Amino acid sequence: MSGSTFGELFRVTNFGESHGPAIGCVIDGCPPGLALSEADIQPDLDRRRPGTSRHVTQRNEADAVEILSGVFEGCTTGTPICLVIRNTDQRSKDYANLLDTFRTGHADYTYWRKYGHRDPRGGGRASARLTAPMVAAGAVARKWLRLAHGTTFLGWMSALGEIPIPFEDAAQIPLNPFFAPNAGIVPRLEAHMDALRKAGDSCGARIEVRAANMPVGLGEPLFDKLDADIAYAMMGINAVKGVEIGAGFGAVAQRGSEHGDELTPAGFASNHSGGVLGGISTGQDLVVSLAIKPTSSIRLPRRSIDRLGAPTVVETHGRHDPCVGIRAAPIAEAMLALVVMDHALRHRAQCGDVAHDVAPIAGAAPSVAPAGARGRE
Amino acid sequence: MSGSTFGELFRVTNFGESHGPAIGCVIDGCPPGLALSEADIQPDLDRRRPGTSRHVTQRNEADAVEILSGVFEGCTTGTPICLVIRNTDQRSKDYANLLDTFRTGHADYTYWRKYGHRDPRGGGRASARLTAPMVAAGAVARKWLRLAHGTTFLGWMSALGEIPIPFEDAAQIPLNPFFAPNAGIVPRLEAHMDALRKAGDSCGARIEVRAANMPVGLGEPLFDKLDADIAYAMMGINAVKGVEIGAGFGAVAQRGSEHGDELTPAGFASNHSGGVLGGISTGQDLVVSLAIKPTSSIRLPRRSIDRLGAPTVVETHGRHDPCVGIRAAPIAEAMLALVVMDHALRHRAQCGDVAHDVAPIAGAAPSVAPAGARGRE
Amino acid sequence: MSGSTFGELFRVTNFGESHGPAIGCVIDGCPPGLALSEADIQPDLDRRRPGTSRHVTQRNEADAVEILSGVFEGCTTGTPICLVIRNTDQRSKDYANLLDTFRTGHADYTYWRKYGHRDPRGGGRASARLTAPMVAAGAVARKWLRLAHGTTFLGWMSALGEIPIPFEDAAQIPLNPFFAPNAGIVPRLEAHMDALRKAGDSCGARIEVRAANMPVGLGEPLFDKLDADIAYAMMGINAVKGVEIGAGFGAVAQRGSEHGDELTPAGFASNHSGGVLGGISTGQDLVVSLAIKPTSSIRLPRRSIDRLGAPTVVETHGRHDPCVGIRAAPIAEAMLALVVMDHALRHRAQCGDVAHDVAPIAGAAPSVAPAGARGRE
Amino acid sequence: MSGSTFGELFRVTNFGESHGPAIGCVIDGCPPGLALSEADIQPDLDRRRPGTSRHVTQRNEADAVEILSGVFEGCTTGTPICLVIRNTDQRSKDYANLLDTFRTGHADYTYWRKYGHRDPRGGGRASARLTAPMVAAGAVARKWLRLAHGTTFLGWMSALGEIPIPFEDAAQIPLNPFFAPNAGIVPRLEAHMDALRKAGDSCGARIEVRAANMPVGLGEPLFDKLDADIAYAMMGINAVKGVEIGAGFGAVAQRGSEHGDELTPAGFASNHSGGVLGGISTGQDLVVSLAIKPTSSIRLPRRSIDRLGAPTVVETHGRHDPCVGIRAAPIAEAMLALVVMDHALRHRAQCGDVAHDVAPIAGAAPSVAPAGARGRE
Repeated sequence: MSGSTFGELFRVTNFGESHGPAIGCVIDGCPPGLALSEADIQPDLDRRRPGTSRHVTQRNEADAVEILSGVFEGCTTGTPICLVIRNTDQRSKDYANLLDTFRTGHADYTYWRKYGHRDPRGGGRASARLTAPMVAAGAVARKWLRLAHGTTFLGWMSALGEIPIPFEDAAQIPLNPFFAPNAGIVPRLEAHMDALRKAGDSCGARIEVRAANMPVGLGEPLFDKLDADIAYAMMGINAVKGVEIGAGFGAVAQRGSEHGDELTPAGFASNHSGGVLGGISTGQDLVVSLAIKPTSSIRLPRRSIDRLGAPTVVETHGRHDPCVGIRAAPIAEAMLALVVMDHALRHRAQCGDVAHDVAPIAGAAPSVAPAGARGRE
Repeated sequence: MSGSTFGELFRVTNFGESHGPAIGCVIDGCPPGLALSEADIQPDLDRRRPGTSRHVTQRNEADAVEILSGVFEGCTTGTPICLVIRNTDQRSKDYANLLDTFRTGHADYTYWRKYGHRDPRGGGRASARLTAPMVAAGAVARKWLRLAHGTTFLGWMSALGEIPIPFEDAAQIPLNPFFAPNAGIVPRLEAHMDALRKAGDSCGARIEVRAANMPVGLGEPLFDKLDADIAYAMMGINAVKGVEIGAGFGAVAQRGSEHGDELTPAGFASNHSGGVLGGISTGQDLVVSLAIKPTSSIRLPRRSIDRLGAPTVVETHGRHDPCVGIRAAPIAEAMLALVVMDHALRHRAQCGDVAHDVAPIAGAAPSVAPAGARGRE
Repeated sequence: MSGSTFGELFRVTNFGESHGPAIGCVIDGCPPGLALSEADIQPDLDRRRPGTSRHVTQRNEADAVEILSGVFEGCTTGTPICLVIRNTDQRSKDYANLLDTFRTGHADYTYWRKYGHRDPRGGGRASARLTAPMVAAGAVARKWLRLAHGTTFLGWMSALGEIPIPFEDAAQIPLNPFFAPNAGIVPRLEAHMDALRKAGDSCGARIEVRAANMPVGLGEPLFDKLDADIAYAMMGINAVKGVEIGAGFGAVAQRGSEHGDELTPAGFASNHSGGVLGGISTGQDLVVSLAIKPTSSIRLPRRSIDRLGAPTVVETHGRHDPCVGIRAAPIAEAMLALVVMDHALRHRAQCGDVAHDVAPIAGAAPSVAPAGARGRE
Repeated sequence: MSGSTFGELFRVTNFGESHGPAIGCVIDGCPPGLALSEADIQPDLDRRRPGTSRHVTQRNEADAVEILSGVFEGCTTGTPICLVIRNTDQRSKDYANLLDTFRTGHADYTYWRKYGHRDPRGGGRASARLTAPMVAAGAVARKWLRLAHGTTFLGWMSALGEIPIPFEDAAQIPLNPFFAPNAGIVPRLEAHMDALRKAGDSCGARIEVRAANMPVGLGEPLFDKLDADIAYAMMGINAVKGVEIGAGFGAVAQRGSEHGDELTPAGFASNHSGGVLGGISTGQDLVVSLAIKPTSSIRLPRRSIDRLGAPTVVETHGRHDPCVGIRAAPIAEAMLALVVMDHALRHRAQCGDVAHDVAPIAGAAPSVAPAGARGRE
């Protein structure tokens, strides 16, 4: 099928370009009866929104979402939910030269080679602005999962460039512009960013994201494993170059006697698996880590070519995030929620009537939401 | 859709269990007119086959593939190709206790929680044996891609446990049981494995896989990016816990001025992107890295529970790979080939008539196979 | 996948309710480089639009379409095209009683049983108003097919209730409110409708739709046959109860010696097949016929029940089409175009490099659009 | 996606050719815990099997099905079920001339134009033999639906050529070779067939198929309506040229006051809708009717062309059904069961927790199977 749709049963079709009239998405397959209004979605969009600190792009977008369909009298009806966000602060009058030149590290060249015709304004379809509809759709999934299963999602920055950010306190995450779970390190992060901006350069970041209170049993073992779909979702976020589940690349140097999580009547004794065994959720927290590359748009001069193949030099002035990873935590949360939501429905479809003759281990949540279990907070 | 199918247009549906009568797959959507026989598939299966050195499981399977459909007079007809591999060396008479106990680090617990009923013999559906049909399907994709685009795939081991394996010589890869591109390090790898086996433990591995002579323009930028689909494919291989494209997690500490690959009239000046920009192939080599966890089946005692929730201890005797990563290179090659194949057809569907008014950069291959371009070697 | 998306490669996701803020669709997978503006779409919407004669609903909707994405400088970019039509003439203030009562012959009861919660205003999601986005998407497909293959689509009414409408002159179709290819019969049709309106009743209709200049070779023989997908598309139009291809139900009483279309060097000698053999297009005209049921909303009293299960009587006053078939011809054309468009891309994906060593029969069009073949009229 | 897969959640991928080594299918998404063995499938295959009366092809195939995967200790595990039927009575040694000539009314010409290369032996992929795997998959769906919802399926012949077959007694259907619900008419049908055979000609047929004890609420209203998917399934059966739901083409001449089924506290007062309103099941019987064209392979000479485009004459001798409709009833039952099964799972996925605050009308079955509701007879 065409590529702009995410998910099989909770399906999100993303549309729009950075400087077009609007961006948005259509969510198809949302369960009916979920209380939903713009107020459920806007807070997540606001967390991702540009222009909120000096460390991110100064583009000023309200990112106000409008629900065009699928909700009646404050509840979802089960029909497609169209969410639209109007673009308001485009400054794209002068893009003629962008059409002719391929910016280094950007999708300009590949779009041109693929499609022959592209919208170059503000990065067009390849802009990180298109993560806003992902966040909006994720907010709907998050609400349903919270009400039906108690599942919650939390992302944070665990490294800014070469600076690791030790996890200290989740309560700090919303209190600084870096989504850092550590108040003490914030001044150092700010100094790092200020220096980068001054140098006209950019840096990468590492993001962690977790899901807690996970239903057991989600995932299709071959090929649509829960971890495979998480990897797809995360690698699909702009600028992501690596994805880990649980021990991740650390597992290479582990022994089996260390990595394998022992089971006890009280539950698992560790979580090297990151909450997935054989592609199916264990009920432990999902543990995911992402590598985000440094922003490609920098002020320093870079060699490139134009459409005629002639050499040229690109220096990017304008409004850009010197570290795109700074705003990535809410995006990663949203994408993880979309994966879990889709698999919750897929699991209910196939296994909604599975009954165990023996009690599962302590603390494991039911994997299928009971009738009438959600929709009212 | 249900989870056992890989790909959208070149679709591979995998079936079977480790100790059932047979495993196999159905490939739907293969272009017609491709010369194909079992002899095109068997060599890749043989590279993955168990029992070929003392460092892998001693299960003795011929892994002989049979083509049941979709080929007439030695050429594909465009209709579904069913490939079957009979299981011959199952030793599963005594699995009653497996039904009651969940092996540590395995999918036993999650399958039971998901389905309520599972085939425990040899790991059932969760066995790495199910990678054989992936390799078989990959061989078909590889042949088409080689003839139509000249694209080739190569995988190797880049670390065995904590031992890094420097890349020295691709010609060495098929000459040692580790798929190591380095003859000198083989004795050290053998000693490492012998010590592990003696200790009753296991270790992880790191695998690199590349595609060369890539068509430009493959990938659907949002959400079905080429790199997102690669991440999905790789994380879906048994025991994989991390995936990197290009610079991967190294990109976190890079500057934008280092990471962004400059363009020159002679092509790209570096390949930190790993061959994908904005989700679309650049024409450079695809560069992918995988983390593989240590084998869960070890001789050392591990705590677990039984179906009644009572504590128990599991020690796994029998035939197992002490490092599942050893046989992973051909699997990773096959999965990468399946991703590229699917996107080659998807690209042709949408963009088969794109014409550029200006010549592309030097050395870039055409992204759509010309009429009559393949099928005859 | 969720149900509101039509097509595999040219994918149309429909959203909206009759009395919500807007209806529309997202087209994903459209080939890039197609010249496109609202002016290409509006004429087809205007043909379907309500309020254009006394024989259809008097709801007054401009049905003005806005392109929100996927088009840059007048050409498609290959990214999703979002089309929005604002609803302007809703009169839904007083729908409280509709929520409690199930109108006879409508989807009220089934939506309530399926979803538990529904938008009853103007029929909500089940309204024929949702065919407008189908027509809009169809206009895009039609333009591409016309430019790439010369394929054109024409629908007309062949029976109004018990009155058959002999085909006389295609030029008459746009000149009367019934899409009747026969000027002489129009007064009789008008009298029929006037009598129905007076009686407070409604009637059915029969619609024919054809595609000319069809590419040969479209259709996946098992299961996504071209005729199977046409049947799906047509039966999915509101109020359709039957679909025929070619000879249709007339084939039951035919002999094989009569039905089978003989082949000659000059082409097929007849077209009982309706342009499809073995699920694949022959290159002859596609010939499709639909049965449309009488409008369910009538003034005559009908027995029904309310949500408590108590008996009630429903009489529908308000703005309704006394024969929904009257506006069905452009809808059927659009749906047929969407099927052909999707299969044209699917065929190019799998068989884009098929070369025949022998010339096909006279007059058959090429089935894969050549490079640069479209986009400029 | 590629075309050989039927269904979204209960997915059946069909493979094989008439004279290849085997035909079969892979069922993915079957709920776990369903008691299943070959004995559940064989009876339906036997009803469809060739060679059982003088009125059908004399090809002698045991059609013995083998389960290769997905079942352990007599119960489905939720993993893919591969069903294989070996071909045993192929007589295809002499097919060279078939490769060069296109048989009238067959898919020979269209396959050649689409794929450039085809298996001509016994019709290859286009043979009605490929309905056997559909029947096998349908048997699995039927068993689950019967146990979970009590739903049953029944098909019969309602016309043989120009002879209508009045419905008298369902008990007669298995007692004659025509699936005729009417003992008295059988001699006339036999005489008709004998005359046809003597004349070297063939005839069409009309088939009715119904589902009883239908769950309410199945169907995705736009586009994947239950009736749209039924139309797709039925038109996809070999030789079908028309599909009706409920009143079908009879609805054209009905008035709204006649067609619309009134609701009473005791249920619907009629069933012109055929069990579907707004694309969603009402809980009444599904009522479907098919037109099947006369067999194309006849002894009478027919004009055709060869691959060089030269005129030729085809006379088909060999083993063929003079009325392919005779064996169509079990196929139509199977396809209807596959549609209902898929929608039962899709409904449970999205609406599995819908709770109504008011009791539904009398006699309506629950639409979601309760936990532990099936698997044991």
